[in-house]
Amino acid sequence: MILASYPKQRDGELRIVAPDRQTSTRMQRRSFAEMIEYGVAPPEGEPEPFDITRCTAPMPRAWQFLDGSAYVNHVELVRRARGAEMPRSFWTDPLMYQGCSDPFLGPTDPISGDPAWGVDFEAEVAVVISDVDMGATVDTARAAIRFIMLLNDVSLRALVPAELGKGFGFVQSKPPSAFAPLALSPDELPCWDGDRLHATMCVNLNGLPFGQTNAGQDMTFGFPELIAHAAKTRPLRAGTVIGSGTVSNKREGGPGDRIVDGGAGYSCIAEQRMVETIQTGSATTPFLTTGDRVEIWMEHEGKSLFGTIDQTVQDWRA
Amino acid sequence: MILASYPKQRDGELRIVAPDRQTSTRMQRRSFAEMIEYGVAPPEGEPEPFDITRCTAPMPRAWQFLDGSAYVNHVELVRRARGAEMPRSFWTDPLMYQGCSDPFLGPTDPISGDPAWGVDFEAEVAVVISDVDMGATVDTARAAIRFIMLLNDVSLRALVPAELGKGFGFVQSKPPSAFAPLALSPDELPCWDGDRLHATMCVNLNGLPFGQTNAGQDMTFGFPELIAHAAKTRPLRAGTVIGSGTVSNKREGGPGDRIVDGGAGYSCIAEQRMVETIQTGSATTPFLTTGDRVEIWMEHEGKSLFGTIDQTVQDWRA
Repeated sequence: MILASYPKQRDGELRIVAPDRQTSTRMQRRSFAEMIEYGVAPPEGEPEPFDITRCTAPMPRAWQFLDGSAYVNHVELVRRARGAEMPRSFWTDPLMYQGCSDPFLGPTDPISGDPAWGVDFEAEVAVVISDVDMGATVDTARAAIRFIMLLNDVSLRALVPAELGKGFGFVQSKPPSAFAPLALSPDELPCWDGDRLHATMCVNLNGLPFGQTNAGQDMTFGFPELIAHAAKTRPLRAGTVIGSGTVSNKREGGPGDRIVDGGAGYSCIAEQRMVETIQTGSATTPFLTTGDRVEIWMEHEGKSLFGTIDQTVQDWRA
Repeated sequence: MILASYPKQRDGELRIVAPDRQTSTRMQRRSFAEMIEYGVAPPEGEPEPFDITRCTAPMPRAWQFLDGSAYVNHVELVRRARGAEMPRSFWTDPLMYQGCSDPFLGPTDPISGDPAWGVDFEAEVAVVISDVDMGATVDTARAAIRFIMLLNDVSLRALVPAELGKGFGFVQSKPPSAFAPLALSPDELPCWDGDRLHATMCVNLNGLPFGQTNAGQDMTFGFPELIAHAAKTRPLRAGTVIGSGTVSNKREGGPGDRIVDGGAGYSCIAEQRMVETIQTGSATTPFLTTGDRVEIWMEHEGKSLFGTIDQTVQDWRA
């Protein structure tokens, strides 16, 4: 099943999209949030031409967004760039924070921020789950995965260190995330193995390739493990969104290289800056500034899976 | 206006409660979340006897819960108890994390946990707001406060240090919070000054008085400041819940004393343990164990404002 939402009030108007993506039909359940809670209901009305450019986020808001940091390579690079050692426990105990899920931005909504905040993108995969009991096992968690989505977890790097130091997570440094137009059920994704999505995370920055990482590779914790981690002390309810964290690939056991150097590139600017810092002592690639454009999509066998996130940075006071 | 919800599906059935609290009427807006978004609609049907013991949380789930730590005295005690100095910036830059808002527990739902997790209560005040734009001023934030509530932010102390160390906030150490039955608009609360609630936070532990702190005192950041902090880089949407953090009073410039010693007591066990550690070198009061009972209510001029949270600890595997 392929789902999308056209803008309408706060929850959007849910559409079921035909496999050829040429048509879509309104659903009896009016919103994604309603559908995931009460189950799939028959479509309502006739198929109409599907306009992917009209779409907002598949789920324009969710009751809960828990974002992991499952590509531990990325975390290790952050630490190495500042000369610190990463605790060994990070390989076995996932990092996870609760992020803003009201609103989620549409695929072409601007990134609204102050360039002085160190605006960055993070290309991530996310899953939407059905109800999961507190204390659920990894196998129970796996069975609860209903849809897969693609997101840009916008990050304000200049505000991160102070919030990390407080230990209370990211309130100011993680503004709303943007989502690609389509949510796909696992059966629509032959490159989904139940735990990870084996597809290429493509990122263009101002029209030039910046990242082409493999989301199925170097993902230390699969989604079922992230879900079980989140469910240790709370039930997770239908519609909860679990994010992967920035996709990040190693190269020959070390940090990845830029695409122009033959590597797979990066899924966020911060990682390229960390590698620059490790290699040359200082970061040269700047964070985003007003007018910069970020395109994020995922490919498998030459086909785009979720449609494209295409955002431009806009000074929020403008 | 006084609101409450009877249990019904995930959002509850919203009731408007008469000022004498003897009757309540069903609302045309079926849930609190719907009402705060679309505005107040007339009641539907006739007033019926109000049964406060039937109530679940006034808002059984919210799209966003941001919990501050506005009683900086509490934070300073935590640090002192472990021999560390609190950064000066904590007096001007609020601590805040995003917490679980799906579900919120009803007032008599059990606290479901493993006693080995160091189960504790935190008695807090919270506000529900209408839409607040990104970058809102403190004055704009003040005008957005629509309702005031009382909650128990259940905390798992044994899981806190590891999560604090990761810096990503509290996912496992903060399970769902429980709310008192009634949500009151500011005009129902003569002890509300627009920023703080000047009422007594009463806590009984196993039937004995544990805390009778003044929530209007020693609250370093008022609610409008907490809201403006949260809105720095994101819009806050109608129905967002902002928490105060554990209410905590000083006594003669130093840490508070137990009620039996003539003090105002504490709003969580951790604080009593910190004072014990500072005074005697070690904490003697245990955290909660199976069967322990916590009652939390707020009083002003001898009247209970929000009804009572009355929870018993239950081993989650039982």
